[in-house]
Amino acid sequence: MEPVRVGLLGLGTVGGGTVSVLTRNADEITRRAGRAIHISHAAAKVYDPAGIDGLDTISTITQDAFEVVNNPDVDIIVELIGGYSPALELVMQAIRNGKHVVTANKALIALHGNEIFAAAQERGVTVAFEAAVAGGIPIIKALREGLAANKIEWVAGIINGTGNYILSEMREKGRDFNEVLKEAQALGYAETDPTFDIEGIDAAHKLTILGAIAFGTPLQFDRTYREGITAIEPLDVQYAGELGYRIKHLGIARWTKQGIEMRVHPTLIPQRRLIANVDGIMNAVLVYGDAVGPTLYYGAGAGRYPTASAVVADLIDVTRTLTIDSENRVPHLAFQPHALADTRILPMDEVETSYYLRMQVVDRPGVLAEVTRILGDRAISIEAIIQKEQLADTVYVPVIFLTQRTLERNMREAIAQIEKLSFVEGSVTRIRVETLA
Amino acid sequence: MEPVRVGLLGLGTVGGGTVSVLTRNADEITRRAGRAIHISHAAAKVYDPAGIDGLDTISTITQDAFEVVNNPDVDIIVELIGGYSPALELVMQAIRNGKHVVTANKALIALHGNEIFAAAQERGVTVAFEAAVAGGIPIIKALREGLAANKIEWVAGIINGTGNYILSEMREKGRDFNEVLKEAQALGYAETDPTFDIEGIDAAHKLTILGAIAFGTPLQFDRTYREGITAIEPLDVQYAGELGYRIKHLGIARWTKQGIEMRVHPTLIPQRRLIANVDGIMNAVLVYGDAVGPTLYYGAGAGRYPTASAVVADLIDVTRTLTIDSENRVPHLAFQPHALADTRILPMDEVETSYYLRMQVVDRPGVLAEVTRILGDRAISIEAIIQKEQLADTVYVPVIFLTQRTLERNMREAIAQIEKLSFVEGSVTRIRVETLA
Repeated sequence: MEPVRVGLLGLGTVGGGTVSVLTRNADEITRRAGRAIHISHAAAKVYDPAGIDGLDTISTITQDAFEVVNNPDVDIIVELIGGYSPALELVMQAIRNGKHVVTANKALIALHGNEIFAAAQERGVTVAFEAAVAGGIPIIKALREGLAANKIEWVAGIINGTGNYILSEMREKGRDFNEVLKEAQALGYAETDPTFDIEGIDAAHKLTILGAIAFGTPLQFDRTYREGITAIEPLDVQYAGELGYRIKHLGIARWTKQGIEMRVHPTLIPQRRLIANVDGIMNAVLVYGDAVGPTLYYGAGAGRYPTASAVVADLIDVTRTLTIDSENRVPHLAFQPHALADTRILPMDEVETSYYLRMQVVDRPGVLAEVTRILGDRAISIEAIIQKEQLADTVYVPVIFLTQRTLERNMREAIAQIEKLSFVEGSVTRIRVETLA
Repeated sequence: MEPVRVGLLGLGTVGGGTVSVLTRNADEITRRAGRAIHISHAAAKVYDPAGIDGLDTISTITQDAFEVVNNPDVDIIVELIGGYSPALELVMQAIRNGKHVVTANKALIALHGNEIFAAAQERGVTVAFEAAVAGGIPIIKALREGLAANKIEWVAGIINGTGNYILSEMREKGRDFNEVLKEAQALGYAETDPTFDIEGIDAAHKLTILGAIAFGTPLQFDRTYREGITAIEPLDVQYAGELGYRIKHLGIARWTKQGIEMRVHPTLIPQRRLIANVDGIMNAVLVYGDAVGPTLYYGAGAGRYPTASAVVADLIDVTRTLTIDSENRVPHLAFQPHALADTRILPMDEVETSYYLRMQVVDRPGVLAEVTRILGDRAISIEAIIQKEQLADTVYVPVIFLTQRTLERNMREAIAQIEKLSFVEGSVTRIRVETLA
């Protein structure tokens, strides 16, 4: 059979990696796919030819991405430019031209996926996006196809490698957030502007996609709650460890009778859980299905070759679907478009979880009684109270509370009351706790 | 669209689970697959109706499985009888009748898969077998599709839950093999005849399948080396722990320039590896691809509903392919049938690995020098020698050697020499060591 002709947009880190993987593994890929996959055209404003093995296999390289998208000789477009514009226009134009699309662009899919998939559905083409979530881990395929027999109860993932690297270093070396962030930037693990990673925006993009696929709902990025890791202090990492927990920046999507929880925030999880031991820049996603129980998927969540691995896997999948009727393809969001449900996404106030609270109090009788009264007034049960050693240079003593599950609203109100107490110094540190069982 | 009509062979543990999952998740499954999946016919000699939710949705239940296989109203046959006969005849007859087949039968696929897939290929039908390896973990799909861009370097898996339960209990509670085995039998984790599990036959079936899919070779069960866990003593579990290792019963498939390694045996692995922390009846498969690096897949490897999860996922996949041309389906063994390679499988003597050796020696000068000379003569480098406390009731002292990588042949010869030494009591315990990095 004739090779499939691919038009590649972007020759940066992942684009270059995709060219290299397709070149070096050409034999294996052809043996698997049944036909060769050839990048016939590419577009890039600037690129470093020295860093890309196999660049000479590309027939035409242009600066104008629209030229590639409009080229009738191209069967599949691979979008690796990133960002919203012109990525969105390019993808929509490719779809209009009847081309299949493969993309690693999580922001684009999370924010514009509904529009993109509707257009693709109408035109009978596929938009594949395995590389958009957790890099090389085939989590989209696992959730969409491998676990298709299940009612998915929840998904919890470490889906941002930068954040996980920072939290792992803080724990292993007792260092503080800003120090580790600077090092991560020097090592290239964090961007010069790290906002997307450390504030959970990147993780929220990915969770939005995972949640939609898990529960059969449209993509709703703006309803995904997020909280970053910038406020995590070494003290909390240490106390969590003493209590048998690790702090991870989790993306959690959970189905409840009241609605769907969609939330990204630092979370204490029991250290005996496998996912609690996923350290450094690695990613892992834990999925709980009603039939299969817990399953976990672990691997590199970013990087040149791991992401290229997912891009090329999508290319092979799309190559297989080139000749088949579009109704029999795996639906973009796992569920048939007409069968997506309008399930409510819970506001954070209605989410129920357990809590780790740390507060600085004056060490005198009656103090803990007052705090426990405030919690008890809101029916918040306490699992443990631990008073730590007085910290140097203060008259205050740190006290840790671990609570049982309660509504976020109750906890928010309780904390506001606690912070008004005269013997409590400053604000209360509040980190959510999940058992993941 | 009309429901897909499924003929189910076997209403035992997994068969009953499959009926239940298809019934209770019918809505989600239809929303995903685009049409309903209905078990119209089933065959079973005996079954327990009380244990199967949704049994009343099956129109016809017969004792004669061939009646179902020959029924023109059935589109897909699900074979959950197990064993070789009549499972093989039923599957071949189903294929001849132009029906797709879903099976959880690892023994059947490992031993007769080549013949089955050739017949299916010729008849243009699919034989799906996700449930045959690692139960509910979608590892076949991950390896065959999710990692299709990669040259797979190696696969290492905990793929027998019974064996992993026994080794986990031995470690956690310091108990001995036979005691834990008896308990596992009482709990239903081990069969009355546990040979398949504890001798590594079951794991070798699964590894045979994983290896073929990873490297694009035919299934070759008879060339898969295996060693059971019956000789593992509590002392070795304890010493391994002290050295920073855990003992796991691993199935390992590795590509080398000299050929492919296919082997199931107890293995020391560093306890900091995620897979070393997979305990109890859970399974996990670690896959190393040249582009993606290490990825890990974890979940329940057996059981009613986890296995049904994989069976039903296959049913949904097959449902999607009902109308498409057979050339564009994912090949049974990941690679196109004409592109399977005849790569040599290495005999165990040519496999290179590191070793843990434990021997009982008389505690006198010159003893260790003599053992190290024997190892040195065969260019086996020693990483560590640890002399333990003298055991009660003997005059012997246990000595542990950790070696660097060497050919199995060298080690076999060295051990034969060491066992001839007058001051060495009994046989040398030899367990292979893998860093999995």
